[in-house]
Amino acid sequence: MNGKEIAHYLSEQKQKVEQALPLYIERLQAPKVLKEAMNYSLEAGGKRIRPLLLLSTLKAFKQDEEMGISVACAIEMIHTYSLIHDDLPSMDNDHLRRGKPTNHVVFGEANAILAGDALLTYSFQLISEMDNRVPATTKLALITELVKAAGAEGMVGGQVADIEGEGVVLSLTELEYIHNHKTGKLLAYSILAAGMMSNASKEQLQKLEQFALHLGLAFQIRDDILDIEGTEEAIGKPVGSDTINEKNTYPSLLTLEGAKDKLASHIHEAKKNLYSVGIDTEILEYLCDLVASRKN
Amino acid sequence: MNGKEIAHYLSEQKQKVEQALPLYIERLQAPKVLKEAMNYSLEAGGKRIRPLLLLSTLKAFKQDEEMGISVACAIEMIHTYSLIHDDLPSMDNDHLRRGKPTNHVVFGEANAILAGDALLTYSFQLISEMDNRVPATTKLALITELVKAAGAEGMVGGQVADIEGEGVVLSLTELEYIHNHKTGKLLAYSILAAGMMSNASKEQLQKLEQFALHLGLAFQIRDDILDIEGTEEAIGKPVGSDTINEKNTYPSLLTLEGAKDKLASHIHEAKKNLYSVGIDTEILEYLCDLVASRKN
Repeated sequence: MNGKEIAHYLSEQKQKVEQALPLYIERLQAPKVLKEAMNYSLEAGGKRIRPLLLLSTLKAFKQDEEMGISVACAIEMIHTYSLIHDDLPSMDNDHLRRGKPTNHVVFGEANAILAGDALLTYSFQLISEMDNRVPATTKLALITELVKAAGAEGMVGGQVADIEGEGVVLSLTELEYIHNHKTGKLLAYSILAAGMMSNASKEQLQKLEQFALHLGLAFQIRDDILDIEGTEEAIGKPVGSDTINEKNTYPSLLTLEGAKDKLASHIHEAKKNLYSVGIDTEILEYLCDLVASRKN
Repeated sequence: MNGKEIAHYLSEQKQKVEQALPLYIERLQAPKVLKEAMNYSLEAGGKRIRPLLLLSTLKAFKQDEEMGISVACAIEMIHTYSLIHDDLPSMDNDHLRRGKPTNHVVFGEANAILAGDALLTYSFQLISEMDNRVPATTKLALITELVKAAGAEGMVGGQVADIEGEGVVLSLTELEYIHNHKTGKLLAYSILAAGMMSNASKEQLQKLEQFALHLGLAFQIRDDILDIEGTEEAIGKPVGSDTINEKNTYPSLLTLEGAKDKLASHIHEAKKNLYSVGIDTEILEYLCDLVASRKN
């Protein structure tokens, strides 16, 4: 496929995920305001990079992407819950997310916490009830790995470490620990989950994981660069907020140029691992380049 | 077994759960403060009524209770996360729980939210990795039902409805909706999960569910009565806080005597359903009586 065809393919897959998400919420028998709060943040858009990585990895293994839609939605629900909780007054106290008022600004703090809790909980049902072409034992392994990626050993642990590191100048190793946990592991899970559904070998899964972790760090470095070089319109929040909040970022540790070099080297490592998996890599390569050059 | 033997049995089972809980946290590779916050509330004690219902139901079906320890711990983690989030300043703003400072008072609001998130997430790993005498398809069903009991369609939905009902005088039906969701469904899950692990028939599961929902309402009514008749020492929080917070309670809707009658009638219905399941009921009966007469 050429670049235009890949872009079209990704846009189609994104649409499928965005059509499925509100249907999952609609079928819940739950208080109206809770469903509204859950939908509000799910519908706030975003790049849907995790679902796209999952579906593109399935395609790279020549599997039917349909098989992975519910897991893709589960991951997007977990990502969304983490944004809702991160934005709370006691955490980052953000009022804007993707150019829209944050969940707690619209629904109040209690409902925002509960909407996050409900999204997190629901994600496990989406996996346990997923496509029966995936064997029950694989579903259970998908659940275990999701817990590791999203919970105390993954994303939640990373967020705690991030809070602990506030106001402290971190080493590059400490910063990488935070990002590998806070964003890397769930991003990596998106790719690994597709590998598991495709019966990838242990060796393939290890290479996919390396690919994914480098991609995750590249993603985070690009985020830090956009906080300096981006526009408020594109990134949906004020530029320079990391500097104002004295956040540890790659540019603050490595200079802006150093951060750009680091980004390039992670993309290089990501692709090197990707090429060694032995699958059709063109769409995943395209996503690598997108991560490295994205404007939002 | 006589009453003394049953009490001894329950105390032994409680000890097994309380020994297992910190071991599950210990093995996590996660920031120290997060593990401390998770442990703090798990160790704060309580009656462990949900784990005891699960293990006693397994025994009633003549199963090895050991098979259910991890699910019992998973339920206790979910119950504990719900208490941590409920106590937050934006929810009930409680500073004391079981006579100890609440999680956010000790660890700060952000860590309390994250400790709750981590406990909720982890609970699903405990089920997916549980005893392999339980078939994979049953484990998946246990996960689906836990989501329904704990998420938007269960406990979280009930908490949202409870918040919506604040300052409004509710009907008995509305109050029962809140309690069935906020506490009833997770309590019922404890019993149903054991039935599912024991290969109970569909009819048996329906009767167990009726038993459990009546028991859950009885449990809640007893809670409301203790807020009036209990002692701060026993209940671990100030007496009369429901009245001060203008909470909808059974005594406020039915008078104290009316609430006591309602409690007795739910215990009666619970036992009637229990007797019809066709299992060894003595310990579950004992737990019914405990719920009806407990002092804390």
